[in-house]
Amino acid sequence: MRNFKLTVAYDGSRYNGWQRQGNTSATIQGKIEDVLLRLFGKSVELHGSGRTDGGVHAVGQVASFKAETELSPREIMEYLNRYLPEDIAVTKAQEAEERFHARLCALRKTYVYRIWNMEYPDVFRRKYMYTVTDAVDAEKMREAARLLLGEHDFLGYSSLKRSKKSTVRRLDKIEITEDSGEIDIFFTGSGFLYNMARILAGTLLEVGTGQRTPGEGALALKTLNRNDAGETLPAKGLTLLSVEY
Amino acid sequence: MRNFKLTVAYDGSRYNGWQRQGNTSATIQGKIEDVLLRLFGKSVELHGSGRTDGGVHAVGQVASFKAETELSPREIMEYLNRYLPEDIAVTKAQEAEERFHARLCALRKTYVYRIWNMEYPDVFRRKYMYTVTDAVDAEKMREAARLLLGEHDFLGYSSLKRSKKSTVRRLDKIEITEDSGEIDIFFTGSGFLYNMARILAGTLLEVGTGQRTPGEGALALKTLNRNDAGETLPAKGLTLLSVEY
Repeated sequence: MRNFKLTVAYDGSRYNGWQRQGNTSATIQGKIEDVLLRLFGKSVELHGSGRTDGGVHAVGQVASFKAETELSPREIMEYLNRYLPEDIAVTKAQEAEERFHARLCALRKTYVYRIWNMEYPDVFRRKYMYTVTDAVDAEKMREAARLLLGEHDFLGYSSLKRSKKSTVRRLDKIEITEDSGEIDIFFTGSGFLYNMARILAGTLLEVGTGQRTPGEGALALKTLNRNDAGETLPAKGLTLLSVEY
Repeated sequence: MRNFKLTVAYDGSRYNGWQRQGNTSATIQGKIEDVLLRLFGKSVELHGSGRTDGGVHAVGQVASFKAETELSPREIMEYLNRYLPEDIAVTKAQEAEERFHARLCALRKTYVYRIWNMEYPDVFRRKYMYTVTDAVDAEKMREAARLLLGEHDFLGYSSLKRSKKSTVRRLDKIEITEDSGEIDIFFTGSGFLYNMARILAGTLLEVGTGQRTPGEGALALKTLNRNDAGETLPAKGLTLLSVEY
């Protein structure tokens, strides 16, 4: 068995997220596994670095799978790109060492949440951004962001009811950029709980619009109470940029 | 009567072009006129700087109209953006002097034709680019582009069968940029005949892929024969960037 590592970009608008759900193939994983089945004549289990929710996009999702094949990574990539829909693309394929596993070996991930802060839409990128017309103070958001960095129990910033597994994660970096009406929040961390990036973005945005103070933005780190964090922003604004190993 | 000038951006994918056609309102002009009718309570004739074909996009299309109203340009813009579909946006509204007319007063236009020259699609911008997987020599395209500059009869580079009006136009500038798999061709000129930007792009691309020499790219300037120019590239790769007055 050889082990392969794929880097995958997708426009998540049409999909119910990364993870295959039963017979529904309207998922990214499902679409790719379908083409791999066709290529190898037998089903292959594809491991993503993590699930992305329905509607979330990716520039550099990473996935791995094992297969008995003589094909080169390049041939596999070409076949996938020939048969995948236009909104999913394999941008890189490599042979990986035997123990590589896209989820278990992931060390850090970077997401961006894009906020469009203009009165009129960006007609070309409207499906990849969340529009807010209120005035946003990015400096206040940066102040709040600093309080969220480090290793914490992020249960209060997730949609998990409770969890048997640890909900401690390490947030290494939050960078907030402003450019001609667009505010982008970049999150880099050891891992993200269910909806965590969208809730962190929602919390920071509420600080930016003055609905909470920077200190209140960090409250749920102490209380672990979902009600003390901001709202879950829409999936379409979120993009998984890269996964580090 | 006051005179207004609008700058309009649109994703042309869903539309049959700029120009209203009878009852069909699936045109950009139709959509905007419908909202202006609703705002003013009477129909308004909107003049675009020129028609864009079905599927062509715009960042800076310009249009003008006259209306008896007390509303400020800003109020008109806000109303339009509230009721226009998400893929059409008014990015600027100004009061114009009485004699301003978006088509008759246009001096120069700039279009970009975007070519995506990679094996896999750009999943986020695939609707705004034309994909070519053959090797493209941009330097050859630049050589051909220089031969097309200046004032010429561009009939051979248009889809017009014949024309009662002059088909002489002035091409001031063709700039070709290359950046990580994307080749953009920027055209600036006094005006563009029906399909002219798409046929110029097609001709230059055929030079870039070696199907014709740079000299052959300019042949139709002499013969005025459509068959001596390259193919009409798909509308989706073309975007009207700006109009100068």
